[in-house]
Amino acid sequence: MMHNGGTMDYIEKFEELINGSDCCFISYIDQFSYPVTKAMLMPRERDGVKTIIFSTNTSSNKVKSFRKNPRASIYFMDRIGYRGLCLSGHIAVDETPEMRKRIWRNGDELYYKSGIMDPDYCVLIFTAERGRYYSNFQSVDFDL
Amino acid sequence: MMHNGGTMDYIEKFEELINGSDCCFISYIDQFSYPVTKAMLMPRERDGVKTIIFSTNTSSNKVKSFRKNPRASIYFMDRIGYRGLCLSGHIAVDETPEMRKRIWRNGDELYYKSGIMDPDYCVLIFTAERGRYYSNFQSVDFDL
Repeated sequence: MMHNGGTMDYIEKFEELINGSDCCFISYIDQFSYPVTKAMLMPRERDGVKTIIFSTNTSSNKVKSFRKNPRASIYFMDRIGYRGLCLSGHIAVDETPEMRKRIWRNGDELYYKSGIMDPDYCVLIFTAERGRYYSNFQSVDFDL
Repeated sequence: MMHNGGTMDYIEKFEELINGSDCCFISYIDQFSYPVTKAMLMPRERDGVKTIIFSTNTSSNKVKSFRKNPRASIYFMDRIGYRGLCLSGHIAVDETPEMRKRIWRNGDELYYKSGIMDPDYCVLIFTAERGRYYSNFQSVDFDL
């Protein structure tokens, strides 16, 4: 539900913004209860703006933090058009062989020497609950 | 104090990263206790990486959130060099005439019609407490 208009009008704009991005930003809450942000390569898989899947290092601070507090946001920006999309939701850390295999890409063995079952390789599944879209100097909130 | 080496070696790298940036990202914790990120124009003033000052809209969600929870981070990235700097600390919302005047720039009257005392114009003063620097596929934590 869009608080200022219909969601359907916006989904197309969100897709265009995300498809025009070459990176995104993940935010988590650290052990001191502070928000922390980090640039990420684009997601490995995505189902609209509802489900967004990344691969990452199991040893990273964000994985440690998400295991304790799954609240997260993913931010995409259009630098030229001066637009931004912040999706809020939660992250699940998935280390199952099925998901490791599904997300794995050729070349990943450069970073994960032991392959698909490398203990430092894991998958982050983000599920969006709501968001905030900034465009034309205005922000619009929406639920998903 | 740098956990993996001396801070002094790094300050120069941080300055170079920040000076090469054309925007940055501010993160706050919203009313639902989720981290939220937003792109910001570069700061109006900065004292190294310790104090970073922005102007913004008093009516914005981030100002409402910072009044309740001052914990914040500011993130700078080097897209080409694949580096990132996340500073964690707290934000004070300053609406004093002195600070409004100090941060005001020619052209701001386009956004704040009533000038320096416009009720929708305010100043965010970020004070860093620690940070995390990502470079060469490694993260280093430091205190400030």
